[in-house]
Amino acid sequence: MKIYLDNAATTRPNVDAVQRAFSALGDDYFNPSALYLEGVVMHNAIRSARKTLLEAVADPFLYDLIFTSGGTEADNHALFGLCRRGNVIISQGEHAAVYESAMELKRRGADVRLAPLRADGSVDPEKLLALVDDRTSLVSVVHVNNETGAVNDIEALSSQVKERNEHTLFHSDGVQAYGKIAFRLPRSVDAYSISAHKIGGAKGTGALIRKKNIRLLPYLFGGGQEGGMRSGTENVFGILCFAYAAEPKFVSLAREGARLSALRELLWQSLNCDVFRRISPEDGSPYILAVAADGLRGEILQRLMAERGVLVGTGSACSSRHPFSRVVAACGLEERFLHGVLRFSFSTETTQEEVMAAAAAANDAASELISRTGR
Amino acid sequence: MKIYLDNAATTRPNVDAVQRAFSALGDDYFNPSALYLEGVVMHNAIRSARKTLLEAVADPFLYDLIFTSGGTEADNHALFGLCRRGNVIISQGEHAAVYESAMELKRRGADVRLAPLRADGSVDPEKLLALVDDRTSLVSVVHVNNETGAVNDIEALSSQVKERNEHTLFHSDGVQAYGKIAFRLPRSVDAYSISAHKIGGAKGTGALIRKKNIRLLPYLFGGGQEGGMRSGTENVFGILCFAYAAEPKFVSLAREGARLSALRELLWQSLNCDVFRRISPEDGSPYILAVAADGLRGEILQRLMAERGVLVGTGSACSSRHPFSRVVAACGLEERFLHGVLRFSFSTETTQEEVMAAAAAANDAASELISRTGR
Repeated sequence: MKIYLDNAATTRPNVDAVQRAFSALGDDYFNPSALYLEGVVMHNAIRSARKTLLEAVADPFLYDLIFTSGGTEADNHALFGLCRRGNVIISQGEHAAVYESAMELKRRGADVRLAPLRADGSVDPEKLLALVDDRTSLVSVVHVNNETGAVNDIEALSSQVKERNEHTLFHSDGVQAYGKIAFRLPRSVDAYSISAHKIGGAKGTGALIRKKNIRLLPYLFGGGQEGGMRSGTENVFGILCFAYAAEPKFVSLAREGARLSALRELLWQSLNCDVFRRISPEDGSPYILAVAADGLRGEILQRLMAERGVLVGTGSACSSRHPFSRVVAACGLEERFLHGVLRFSFSTETTQEEVMAAAAAANDAASELISRTGR
Repeated sequence: MKIYLDNAATTRPNVDAVQRAFSALGDDYFNPSALYLEGVVMHNAIRSARKTLLEAVADPFLYDLIFTSGGTEADNHALFGLCRRGNVIISQGEHAAVYESAMELKRRGADVRLAPLRADGSVDPEKLLALVDDRTSLVSVVHVNNETGAVNDIEALSSQVKERNEHTLFHSDGVQAYGKIAFRLPRSVDAYSISAHKIGGAKGTGALIRKKNIRLLPYLFGGGQEGGMRSGTENVFGILCFAYAAEPKFVSLAREGARLSALRELLWQSLNCDVFRRISPEDGSPYILAVAADGLRGEILQRLMAERGVLVGTGSACSSRHPFSRVVAACGLEERFLHGVLRFSFSTETTQEEVMAAAAAANDAASELISRTGR
């Protein structure tokens, strides 16, 4: 049995959630737009899932929730659907879904500004705020950095941004935060992206939570589903599974946060400190520990650990085809650490035995690599 | 047990396909972008599904296939990703996913031209060709009209369009054709949209097949999945389920086509010809029979039939919240038939007993409604 510590890339679907949603792949297969009773029942099931997912973090009188095909679509929808004339500000710590959308906006002629990071991957608030001016239409800052686990205080950031320019909209990618860290959406956040498969749902479902009174352009045009904001027959199974997977996460959120923080520290203390340097902050997400090995290559360590039965990430899975991480580089990590990043990421299934075994595997892998290369 | 004849809206997922793909919701939950073996295995499973789905209708040397969240996204991707300066031509028989995308292009300033329909819902080829000029960047014509089942000869249309302007790209929405009617993509078709849940796959998965040598803009930006054309963690379950559901459809395609054509004619002959007029052509898709009831309302007939245990559509489920069908109106149907459209749509599970019972239910429902309203 492998030890899986790459939960920030994707999690094992929650068996109970899959089971409960499964009827949508069987007898309850009807189109939620159909006008006969069976269609209306599916429509109501989606409405109930929407309510569950929305009310877990937001006031349903102020916000609604648009189901999407995942966090990437939610981020693209927010960036392309909220930006207007003027400039757009994102942090250098954004997930590729926000970063590459912003780069596309730039190719289309927008003035895109990048706010620099601190060493732990969080955005530097003062430098971010200095970029805001009276022509800033949108600011997007990731809630929990998916590579380092650093938590941005989006409540403070969004309200400070609005003090500078009350017309600026504020979006946050909450994919690594939702169902993992305690949080309610403050009024100053206008849109928030979430994803199912990071918390035990199925791949292919996400949502954009957005303030009702803001003007958002639709992203997919067609039959007018999702209040006209996102056309296309609803992924009923994925949507129900998302809600069923989210429910228990919010119930156990505080308890799991404390438990995983302790495991994260245990893992860190068990790593060979002559080799590994810590990137993740102590006050970051309990679900992520990013470290960097001095002078070693992360992808080789990853492979040697996999041979030892431990699966970890080397950075964002979404960008694992690139040589090193744009985000970690923006943290200011020295060159000799930059290629040696490992990301351990946890789930509510992660045990103490697993993190101890993972630390041993990482130390072993590093020793083998050092003795091989004679560093 | 209800009789379900609304398969053009969505089909019951194929039990075997769901079962075979199910491991992607269980032990094979890994992220296909992960570099360890378990991720590579998922990546390869997707590649194999891509090959199956592509080779069923296209030459893999000329075309590739981009997985999307459904037919709507594929259509949006084609329209927004292929149109350039100049004008865009669509038929009046397009599904809302193409039609509303074109209307959005129009709002953004594009010259959008609508080619009129013939009485059966197929596009008038001469009138379409007359709209093509040296500034036509894109033509999009649905392969099988989702409301009437009329088949457009996209091979002839696309080659005639290219005779007029060799630079014009040709897209077709093949959602109601793929896996249902015999067809190979001719070189003159540049892009083709398909959907899983119309042929026994799950909702939330589709694909855009496109010629390799054409310039297509990405639709979702981020981690660079799908060759950079469609970022976002792949919906592995949906993708595998799509391929597993498609395979048997192509094996039984000719046999089922003949069987359902006969059932469609049997259904038509069993309907009360004093009330119902046929919209669907005899040479149309065997999977769809659209009729219109003289002076009656389709949604009331639909409800009365549902009370008798038979589920049918009143037009495209995607647009069922509108008063009457834009597409059927474009067929030139007289006012007194326009509100009375019923769509019977079949699947490989449909039986003779079901279509006979459906005809009886439709006749009964019409009689009841006529006696009630005293028409």
